[in-house]
Amino acid sequence: MRGISIILSLLMLILLPATSSAQQNLWMGDGVRSVEISDSHNVTFRLYAPDAQGVALKGDFLSEGIHSVSMTRGEDGVWSYTTEPLPSEMYYYSFIVDGIGEINDPESVYLVRDVARQMNYFIVGGGCGDLYKPQAVPHGTVSRVWAEMGDTERRMVVYTPAGYESSRKKYPVLYLLHGMGGDEEAWLATGRAAEIMDNLIASGKAQEMIVVMTNGCTHHVAAPGYSEEGMWRPYMSGSMDGSFETMFADVVKWVDSTYRTKAKADSRAIAGLSMGGFHAMQISKSYPAMFDYVGLFSAAIFRGKEGVALYDDLEAKLCRQFHEGVELYWIAIGCDDFLYDENVKYRALLDSLALPYTYHESEGGHIWRNWRCYLTEFAQMIFK
Amino acid sequence: MRGISIILSLLMLILLPATSSAQQNLWMGDGVRSVEISDSHNVTFRLYAPDAQGVALKGDFLSEGIHSVSMTRGEDGVWSYTTEPLPSEMYYYSFIVDGIGEINDPESVYLVRDVARQMNYFIVGGGCGDLYKPQAVPHGTVSRVWAEMGDTERRMVVYTPAGYESSRKKYPVLYLLHGMGGDEEAWLATGRAAEIMDNLIASGKAQEMIVVMTNGCTHHVAAPGYSEEGMWRPYMSGSMDGSFETMFADVVKWVDSTYRTKAKADSRAIAGLSMGGFHAMQISKSYPAMFDYVGLFSAAIFRGKEGVALYDDLEAKLCRQFHEGVELYWIAIGCDDFLYDENVKYRALLDSLALPYTYHESEGGHIWRNWRCYLTEFAQMIFK
Repeated sequence: MRGISIILSLLMLILLPATSSAQQNLWMGDGVRSVEISDSHNVTFRLYAPDAQGVALKGDFLSEGIHSVSMTRGEDGVWSYTTEPLPSEMYYYSFIVDGIGEINDPESVYLVRDVARQMNYFIVGGGCGDLYKPQAVPHGTVSRVWAEMGDTERRMVVYTPAGYESSRKKYPVLYLLHGMGGDEEAWLATGRAAEIMDNLIASGKAQEMIVVMTNGCTHHVAAPGYSEEGMWRPYMSGSMDGSFETMFADVVKWVDSTYRTKAKADSRAIAGLSMGGFHAMQISKSYPAMFDYVGLFSAAIFRGKEGVALYDDLEAKLCRQFHEGVELYWIAIGCDDFLYDENVKYRALLDSLALPYTYHESEGGHIWRNWRCYLTEFAQMIFK
Repeated sequence: MRGISIILSLLMLILLPATSSAQQNLWMGDGVRSVEISDSHNVTFRLYAPDAQGVALKGDFLSEGIHSVSMTRGEDGVWSYTTEPLPSEMYYYSFIVDGIGEINDPESVYLVRDVARQMNYFIVGGGCGDLYKPQAVPHGTVSRVWAEMGDTERRMVVYTPAGYESSRKKYPVLYLLHGMGGDEEAWLATGRAAEIMDNLIASGKAQEMIVVMTNGCTHHVAAPGYSEEGMWRPYMSGSMDGSFETMFADVVKWVDSTYRTKAKADSRAIAGLSMGGFHAMQISKSYPAMFDYVGLFSAAIFRGKEGVALYDDLEAKLCRQFHEGVELYWIAIGCDDFLYDENVKYRALLDSLALPYTYHESEGGHIWRNWRCYLTEFAQMIFK
C-alpha cells in the first residue's frame, strides 16, 4: 500500500507546476540524512553547505564546557561530524555557519522550543530515551484548554490517559509546573510529559492519572503566539509575587468541575521545576489540605518576592501542611545545580521542624535531562 | 508586575553559571528584530550574519516566479530587505545563506510545518489576516486524540468551541480533511483552523461547531514524531485507494460516541483541500445520508486509484447522495490551480446530472492562502 501511495505521489508531483507558492514549491529531493544514529549509538550529523567558510555543531551531548565542535567538509559540500557513543537520552543540536550562531537543521522537522529558541532534537534509545519516544502503547489525549483563573481566561495543557473518553472512571490529578521562561507547553515539548506518562501507564509502572500543565507567568495568559498578545519574543520571566499561587485554587476548582477527577487530597499531586518547584512548595503549603503528594524538582526555594503575605510564616505553614497529611514530599536536585545550596538549606529547615521528606540527588545541573528523569521517578511514586 | 519579574529574571540570569546545557545556556541578548511590519504594511526582514558572503530572502509574498531576493549587508553585519506594502495575510519566509537553501529565522520561534519544511511565518493584520490571529475572544479547546478506525488507533485533532466544557448542549460537526503530504496537524498549523473558528464564532458569523481534523494517509497512524514509527521524514504521500474512505464511518461513530454531537446529516459537514477534497467527495457520496454540507477546496477530483470499487459508479452514487438531500455542495478553486481543468470537468458532470452545487472561483493556485479563505467562507454557510 505504501508502494502504491509513493507511486501516486510521484505522479502528482510530476503534475505540479513550479511556482513560488508554499504548497506547490515543496521539498522534493532526498536531501542529506542529517542525523544518523549507529547501532553503537555514535551519532553522525550532516549539513549541506557548499559555500560556507566554516560549520560547527552545538549540542547538549558535547562535554561540559565545550561550546561547539568543528564539522569537516566533504567533497560533495556536505559537512559532517560523528560523536562518541552517546547514552540513551533526548538531545538538542544546532549548527553555526559563517558566524550565524545557531541555525536549525534544514533537513529535520523535529523541533522543541525552550524559551526563545526552537531547537532540533533527536533521541538515542535503548535506555531512558525509550520513555521519551512514542511507543506502540495506548496514547492519552492532550488538550489545550482555556480556563477561568482569577478574573482572566488562561491557557493550560491537560493530559488525560488512554481510555478516559470511553470509561466512566474518576482519575487522580498531577499538577505539573514549569520554570522561568517556560509556559504551559514546556513540560509537553522539552519535558516529554505525554510520552513519559503513556509509557509508564502502559507498563503498569504509574497509575492512570490526569496531568494538568498550567502557565505560571501571570503577566501572560498563554504561551507566545496563542493569545491576543500576538507574536511576542519569549524571555526569561516568571511570577514569584504570589499572583500565580493565589489563582491556583481556581485551577483546581476548574479541573475538578471539568474532568472526572477524584477530588480529594490523596488523589492530588503537585510538582514543578525551578520556579515551578517554588510554586509547588508555596501552593501546597498555602492550601494545606489540597495535595498529599508534592515534588520539588531543582526548586528555586527562596526566590519569592519580599513582602508577599502568602510567602510569610513559612515554618508555621509547612507544619500545618504536614499536620494535615502528606504522603510524599519529594525533593530532587542535581549536584551541579546552581540552586543546590538553597535546597540544602531548605532540607535543613525541614529537618529542624522534623517534617519528613524524601531526597533524591542526581548528577548534572539545572537541565531538562534531569527534570524528565525526576518526572519519571515521581510519577511512579504517587497515588499508590 | 512585569517590571519586577524582569528584575527577578535578570537576578537569576546573573546566578546562572555558563555551561553547555540547554536550560542554562539560554538566549540572553536582544538580537535583531527580524520581522518588522510598518504602519503601511511594508515588512523589513533582518538577519545577523556578519561573515556570510551573501544572504537572500525567500517568501510567498514575493511576486510570482521570483525565487528569492538579495538582502543588503549593513555595517553592523545585519542583512536587511524591505518589501512593498503587503496585503493582510499570513506569510512564510526563510533565508538563504552561502548556498544553504532555506534556513529558519534564528530570532523567531514562530514556525509552521508544511510537509517536510518548518517555515517561519508572520501575519499582516488589517484584513483577513486578523482572522488568523488569536483575538481577545473566547477560545475553543484543541485536543489531540487517538481513536479506533478500522483495526488501528489513529490520531486526530478535535476543536470544540468555547463553552463546550461548561454547557450540556449538542453541537454540529465539521470534518476537515488535509491534502497530500499533510496530516492531522495541517489544518491547525498552516490552515489556522482554530483561530478562524474562534473568531468567526465570536463575531456570530459562524455557528458554534466541533471541527474534526483526521489523518487521511492510511499508511501512517499519526503526524511525524507522534507514533511508534518515530522521527520519519515527511514526504508527499496520500491515500487514494479507498482505504481512508472505508474507515471514515468509524471516525463519525467515534466522534458521535465521544462528544456531544448532533448526530444527524443536517448537523454534519465534510470539507477538504486537494486530496482531502477528493476524500470529501468520495466519503459524502459513499455514505449518502451522512452529510448535508460538502466542501471541495481545490479538490483532486479524478485522482483515485483505478479499480477501487468505492470509486466506481460515480454518477449513480452522486445522484443517490443528492436524492438523500444536500443543503450545500460547495466547490472552490483558484484560477491558476493545476487542478482547475478537472474541476471544470467535474462541474460539467454535475451539470449533466442536474445536481445543484455552488461554485466559488478565486485568484491564485494550489496554496494555503486560498484554503484558509475557503474555510472562512464555508464555515459561515453551514448549519444555518
